[in-house]
Amino acid sequence: MEPKVGVIMGSKSDWETMKHTCDILDELKVDYEKKVVSAHRTPDFMFEYAEHAQDRGIEVIIAGAGGAAHLPGMVAAKTLLPVIGVPVQSKALNGMDSLLSIVQMPGGVPVATVSIGKAGATNAGLLAAQFLAVHDADLRNRLIMRRNQMRDMALESSGDLQ
Amino acid sequence: MEPKVGVIMGSKSDWETMKHTCDILDELKVDYEKKVVSAHRTPDFMFEYAEHAQDRGIEVIIAGAGGAAHLPGMVAAKTLLPVIGVPVQSKALNGMDSLLSIVQMPGGVPVATVSIGKAGATNAGLLAAQFLAVHDADLRNRLIMRRNQMRDMALESSGDLQ
Amino acid sequence: MEPKVGVIMGSKSDWETMKHTCDILDELKVDYEKKVVSAHRTPDFMFEYAEHAQDRGIEVIIAGAGGAAHLPGMVAAKTLLPVIGVPVQSKALNGMDSLLSIVQMPGGVPVATVSIGKAGATNAGLLAAQFLAVHDADLRNRLIMRRNQMRDMALESSGDLQ
Amino acid sequence: MEPKVGVIMGSKSDWETMKHTCDILDELKVDYEKKVVSAHRTPDFMFEYAEHAQDRGIEVIIAGAGGAAHLPGMVAAKTLLPVIGVPVQSKALNGMDSLLSIVQMPGGVPVATVSIGKAGATNAGLLAAQFLAVHDADLRNRLIMRRNQMRDMALESSGDLQ
Amino acid sequence: MEPKVGVIMGSKSDWETMKHTCDILDELKVDYEKKVVSAHRTPDFMFEYAEHAQDRGIEVIIAGAGGAAHLPGMVAAKTLLPVIGVPVQSKALNGMDSLLSIVQMPGGVPVATVSIGKAGATNAGLLAAQFLAVHDADLRNRLIMRRNQMRDMALESSGDLQ
Amino acid sequence: MEPKVGVIMGSKSDWETMKHTCDILDELKVDYEKKVVSAHRTPDFMFEYAEHAQDRGIEVIIAGAGGAAHLPGMVAAKTLLPVIGVPVQSKALNGMDSLLSIVQMPGGVPVATVSIGKAGATNAGLLAAQFLAVHDADLRNRLIMRRNQMRDMALESSGDLQ
Amino acid sequence: MEPKVGVIMGSKSDWETMKHTCDILDELKVDYEKKVVSAHRTPDFMFEYAEHAQDRGIEVIIAGAGGAAHLPGMVAAKTLLPVIGVPVQSKALNGMDSLLSIVQMPGGVPVATVSIGKAGATNAGLLAAQFLAVHDADLRNRLIMRRNQMRDMALESSGDLQ
Amino acid sequence: MEPKVGVIMGSKSDWETMKHTCDILDELKVDYEKKVVSAHRTPDFMFEYAEHAQDRGIEVIIAGAGGAAHLPGMVAAKTLLPVIGVPVQSKALNGMDSLLSIVQMPGGVPVATVSIGKAGATNAGLLAAQFLAVHDADLRNRLIMRRNQMRDMALESSGDLQ
Repeated sequence: MEPKVGVIMGSKSDWETMKHTCDILDELKVDYEKKVVSAHRTPDFMFEYAEHAQDRGIEVIIAGAGGAAHLPGMVAAKTLLPVIGVPVQSKALNGMDSLLSIVQMPGGVPVATVSIGKAGATNAGLLAAQFLAVHDADLRNRLIMRRNQMRDMALESSGDLQ
Repeated sequence: MEPKVGVIMGSKSDWETMKHTCDILDELKVDYEKKVVSAHRTPDFMFEYAEHAQDRGIEVIIAGAGGAAHLPGMVAAKTLLPVIGVPVQSKALNGMDSLLSIVQMPGGVPVATVSIGKAGATNAGLLAAQFLAVHDADLRNRLIMRRNQMRDMALESSGDLQ
Repeated sequence: MEPKVGVIMGSKSDWETMKHTCDILDELKVDYEKKVVSAHRTPDFMFEYAEHAQDRGIEVIIAGAGGAAHLPGMVAAKTLLPVIGVPVQSKALNGMDSLLSIVQMPGGVPVATVSIGKAGATNAGLLAAQFLAVHDADLRNRLIMRRNQMRDMALESSGDLQ
Repeated sequence: MEPKVGVIMGSKSDWETMKHTCDILDELKVDYEKKVVSAHRTPDFMFEYAEHAQDRGIEVIIAGAGGAAHLPGMVAAKTLLPVIGVPVQSKALNGMDSLLSIVQMPGGVPVATVSIGKAGATNAGLLAAQFLAVHDADLRNRLIMRRNQMRDMALESSGDLQ
Repeated sequence: MEPKVGVIMGSKSDWETMKHTCDILDELKVDYEKKVVSAHRTPDFMFEYAEHAQDRGIEVIIAGAGGAAHLPGMVAAKTLLPVIGVPVQSKALNGMDSLLSIVQMPGGVPVATVSIGKAGATNAGLLAAQFLAVHDADLRNRLIMRRNQMRDMALESSGDLQ
Repeated sequence: MEPKVGVIMGSKSDWETMKHTCDILDELKVDYEKKVVSAHRTPDFMFEYAEHAQDRGIEVIIAGAGGAAHLPGMVAAKTLLPVIGVPVQSKALNGMDSLLSIVQMPGGVPVATVSIGKAGATNAGLLAAQFLAVHDADLRNRLIMRRNQMRDMALESSGDLQ
Repeated sequence: MEPKVGVIMGSKSDWETMKHTCDILDELKVDYEKKVVSAHRTPDFMFEYAEHAQDRGIEVIIAGAGGAAHLPGMVAAKTLLPVIGVPVQSKALNGMDSLLSIVQMPGGVPVATVSIGKAGATNAGLLAAQFLAVHDADLRNRLIMRRNQMRDMALESSGDLQ
Repeated sequence: MEPKVGVIMGSKSDWETMKHTCDILDELKVDYEKKVVSAHRTPDFMFEYAEHAQDRGIEVIIAGAGGAAHLPGMVAAKTLLPVIGVPVQSKALNGMDSLLSIVQMPGGVPVATVSIGKAGATNAGLLAAQFLAVHDADLRNRLIMRRNQMRDMALESSGDLQ
């Protein structure tokens, strides 16, 4: 199947975070591709990737990056697909630099930013799935089931408070 | 026409920010509804709104709030529609509290967060349009035209640097 | 005995923090119940819990949560009981996000916020006890004794500065 | 009537913020007293005030202060009454210093902290009323009515979004 | 004369800041060109500009931008000329977002970052001049004279402290 | 009389803040001198000033500066007199940069840092006076009288809360 | 000998930091006393300590505390001796809360604040010694010797950069 | 060969960071010298170093320091060579203090600031090399080759995402 989600990240070292995006997409049976696309080390490839993603059937792009995280915003500048940005937790500033570099986009070019680190990577996958589920009843059902399980696990976990 | 986008905000005073969302949706001819839905003052109405939005044909919800901004995250907990959160600039902390309250969602319930204040409100409208445009070629063309105009205006503005 | 204090937390993983609340309540012989109540994973149960707490004899609710911590504020929106919020220390931002999400409530719906992490969890239990002690002389005496012990231990600890 | 709430503040200049506490208490017909009590300029009076408040029938103390805001925490160290701290917005750091100085109390001496500035001052009055309302059905009814009005005003305000 | 310095900025509204760069270059008789080059609105032109700057005789690029300020870092990724980044003061976060987005570049692609706002814009011009002056004794003399004047004015200004 | 306190500041524009230091010293009849001494514009004069201050009878130096505020720390590195640093409120970061640049000195070279802006400038004068008063009973009496007045004014100001 | 410096700290756990103050005072042969004095657990003893310190021959007080660090400021409110505040590094906020609670004192009551943690504790001892050395030539000579050693060690350490 | 780059740092402990600067210069065959030059412990040597660097053939100075990091700015005040500042990650505040102390220079004396810690140290070396490469085609070729390798490694690393 053609991938509908492109999961890209600025560096191999972001994989530890971004694998949580891929885990969710696997769990929800959403087809995706994953690649290292670096704003600073592979700028031309980044532009090429962003420019042709829609033609290849991609419907949403998830981009994770840390520090002066330019990848999500630059990809968003080169495509009209929705772009989800994942702020990877940085070493010195704990991801506050990543978050501000991703979320504070000027009017005109939006990036859908999620939380810093692992929780954000998980949520990026879910957000992509929720986009696709608007026109995919089966995926929507899988999302509903996941929410129900999550709810039931939370309700049951009161018994573990010892 | 049925609105496809629900624009909600925690208080009438958020309108000064959120009208920029509506301006973009008007400009792009996207049908929307707008309402005050307060997490803290109208919690039951908030849940009702979130729970029934999809049944009424809404495809994406945009929620603006400031301070301990719980509206986007709570709506996201009650629907599987994509929810875009706009951090309204707060008085004391300039919207840093709004931003963190919206973006730092736990794994499981994503909110697509945009930048603080007016730029974010504009981008929320654009992001919603980009979602819808994946399956709406006309809207996509209007977005392309808007980007082209934006590009041309930027290119021409060098002449104004005096 | 009927519990007078409801200790709730957004996730099982918050127990490591919130057990310090329960330790204090045990020490002061204050009856309480403890539960996982998640704003994002169990929103309906949260509303139900908040709505019926007072009818069940609860006089104060203590709610611990981390990150975009919506639990204390949403419970406060659904009850007129005093709600104490404990900001659990988050991974990336050390609880600054939890603190701002809990404390920066808009005018109309207060949350009594305590310090981040273990010290805050301890203080939440003490604050609840101090509320109850206004009308409970025995509990007040136990609080006085605890303060006296705390004072004496501090005074004696100068001898340990080596 | 004997006042049940003591509203104190570090300086006359805090009145612009703390009058919002008094407005709420007036509105809810809660008896209170108000005084300037400065941790740094009148430390002895502060201790005397805190030590004798309960004997004079005070059931909750609300203390507002800005900058290195020591008033709420020091009063809390000298009484077992619940103490609510209001972080007054400071000039240079917008109240972030006030907030941290009030909320980050060590385990043992809690301060119930509310939001920075006017919203916090309003909420301090409401929180005190909610404490007292646990044993005062009339006050509780006034609080319920206030919440209902607040809800209705929010619901109606959608009509003003133009 | 061929310009040796390229002064670019993300938007016409950055001119209020960046004119201070041009004022310094004028004062020091350094040839420069100035342009609006937007990372997000004119990404292709940005790449083209960065790629060909050196061929056109540019020896240093000064790039000013605010918010999620991607311009300096992306230009730096497309050229081996030294790139100086000026964080323009942003509305909500006072330029802290601009600063972190510019300075926190990953290892491999440096941006020479200066202070936020007007002082930084002035210093960007001086830094560019100091680079060029390493191989230009006349320019170096003009810089020495400027420093001497600055020193003398400071020494004399003690008389104005009344 | 020989001045015992040297009040220096990085720029004429700091006078608006630092005049509050001089006002206190005037009020307390402490002899002082005041000068613009800039770490960055007059580094040699700064070293000369710091090196010879003690020989000229100066007993404490007060240094005010903003932004990357190097003056207090550099003076402290060149003298063994106590140096008090006043963080002047900066334009973009509200004096947080000034504060951290002054207070975060490495072990070995202390700077006695006071609060940001006007309150800090006042306190710098008082702190210098308190140093001198350890060996000057008359000055100590003037300080006692000032504290008493401050206390009395605070106590009386409760009457103004309307 | 009578101690001239009072080293106090809010809790036994601050000793790990504050021992560096005592090490410096030992090294410089300055007589001191050390005690746990807690603003929140032993408020009366704190006031008593502050009020009588000068009568007992103390000439400067060093107070270390963390979190909502009220000790230095409250001691300063009860004495006219110079008070040096050491912000102890806190668990959640790394001492930023300690720093702001200590340094941001209102005009009228100064605290001489040093850097966060160990470096600050060292510098507090040095600052106290520098105060005393203004009237103690022997101590001044020991300080000069220490500075010279520090300088020589720094100069020699270039050889270790491998 | 005469060194063209002076790599200096405030303390031996900064070597762990600054060795990454030297590694890059070694890799690119740029001649450099390295020294401990402390603003606070060796202020006279610092001035001497800065004043004579250009005469000895140095063309760019790289200065690393942490906390109240005054070294880069003070060296910049004493030379007209370009000065690159590396904010070393500090213990309590993770290098935010270092960054602000280095980057927030007043108009008149620029410091070219790079990112906090190791990445910044690497980039300082690259930035120096890029300055020199403007007039050194061989060095420029080595820089081009390094960029190409970096690009190729990034492109190939997609295969490692498992």
